[in-house]
Amino acid sequence: MKRSYVHGYDRRARTRLQDQADAVADLLHSDTSYPAGSTVLEAGCGVGSQTVSLARNSPGARITSVDISAESLAEARSKVEAASLGNVQFRQGDVYALPFEPESFDHVFICFLLEHVPRPLDALAALKKLLRPGGSITVFEGDHGSTYFHPDSAAAHAAIRCQVELQRRGGGNANIGRELYPLLNQAGFQALRVSPRMVYVDSSRPRLVEGFTRKTFTAMIEGVREAAIKAGMIEPAAFDAGIRDLYRTAEDDGVFCYTFFKAFAVKEPMRARR
Amino acid sequence: MKRSYVHGYDRRARTRLQDQADAVADLLHSDTSYPAGSTVLEAGCGVGSQTVSLARNSPGARITSVDISAESLAEARSKVEAASLGNVQFRQGDVYALPFEPESFDHVFICFLLEHVPRPLDALAALKKLLRPGGSITVFEGDHGSTYFHPDSAAAHAAIRCQVELQRRGGGNANIGRELYPLLNQAGFQALRVSPRMVYVDSSRPRLVEGFTRKTFTAMIEGVREAAIKAGMIEPAAFDAGIRDLYRTAEDDGVFCYTFFKAFAVKEPMRARR
Repeated sequence: MKRSYVHGYDRRARTRLQDQADAVADLLHSDTSYPAGSTVLEAGCGVGSQTVSLARNSPGARITSVDISAESLAEARSKVEAASLGNVQFRQGDVYALPFEPESFDHVFICFLLEHVPRPLDALAALKKLLRPGGSITVFEGDHGSTYFHPDSAAAHAAIRCQVELQRRGGGNANIGRELYPLLNQAGFQALRVSPRMVYVDSSRPRLVEGFTRKTFTAMIEGVREAAIKAGMIEPAAFDAGIRDLYRTAEDDGVFCYTFFKAFAVKEPMRARR
Repeated sequence: MKRSYVHGYDRRARTRLQDQADAVADLLHSDTSYPAGSTVLEAGCGVGSQTVSLARNSPGARITSVDISAESLAEARSKVEAASLGNVQFRQGDVYALPFEPESFDHVFICFLLEHVPRPLDALAALKKLLRPGGSITVFEGDHGSTYFHPDSAAAHAAIRCQVELQRRGGGNANIGRELYPLLNQAGFQALRVSPRMVYVDSSRPRLVEGFTRKTFTAMIEGVREAAIKAGMIEPAAFDAGIRDLYRTAEDDGVFCYTFFKAFAVKEPMRARR
């Protein structure tokens, strides 16, 4: 799971991830909860941006949150402790080879994980093995190609493309949201249902202007400035013009649109013997 | 209202418009209805694609549907008669100078109108004059810039851009959906609320694959082939490759996304004298 350019582990990146978690929490968690007594694997929990909401919405479920980074796990753990949640345990591990027995979870939950893994189908296959027959998987991913705005700006789109290309070079896919249906289908999940969750922002929604357009999306693109310039993808002035135009969409007559995708599917239950 | 390239008045275009009306009817009409006794102006009714749903959902309202084209009006009238609806009357007129007294309607309804008019703000101002103080306006428009799909394809985007550019040269704006908030705001409407209506299509939704991806969107882009080639915008082979790639998104592992925008706003009521 390469997160090099995209999600730095510095304080600024952490703040951004938390702003994003707040702004999109409703979109993601409003219809995600697990029954008491069920076991839930959160794969790729990162710094725990979703873990607290997940654990709060399913107080009786036993959640196991894993990530490849010990440092991220430490931060996730302190978030969960600060929220006085007792139903989460943490384990370090790689999504392709997690340290669990097959069929040991009732449910799998992943958020902003597939966008970073070089082999999303293999990751889904590995997670499917850990799921009991009849268990569910919930997947939440963004799609940077779903971004459009007013005023439109070629410079802003060019800056966004830098982020997409850097993520691609890191083995990821920033436009993976639209692919959840074919991916989960190909991985053999059943009863698959994908629902887009569009974030529409105009100045009648100031919390989203600040929390999403400015502090989440534009800050994320701004965060790849040095890497994009160093990689020779863009001239500094062109990149900066793109960022200015993204902030421009947060003004009173601006509009900003972005879509996340949520997928829900089930692992085929064992067939009854005849 | 130039509709030259974009909406031909031949049988095929009429069929397409009806397919589109069926596929998007729920998105548009599910929360549009007017009280008994109220007067509603439908400006730019075209061939009546929305008029029947509008009249059915508001059986007690008195609807006046206008269009600049006598031929379109005749077709709209026969649709309404075939549906045995008695609450619609038709008038011919130009949206900038409609033959009605100021403040003579309780509500205004427009759908796929602003995308075709060269001066959308002037059109909104003209419609606002016809609205009584405290009356409402409902606007529904698409946005071709909201289109993305899987598999992604530069050729498909190039073909779509031909349609957008032809519409622009005709005085319209195929990407106007995202601008509804600033436009209605600038026109001085109050209590403005824009809600996006995304059409998400994967193969678990065969009615949308057929009715929207294939018969509505791709057929519409395909319909500008000759005009785009004649205008020197694109080579025939490149255009055809784009259309093939759009149809490709309608296959089993394909995904297609498009977003309409619905706006609702109110004309400021007269202030009480103090």
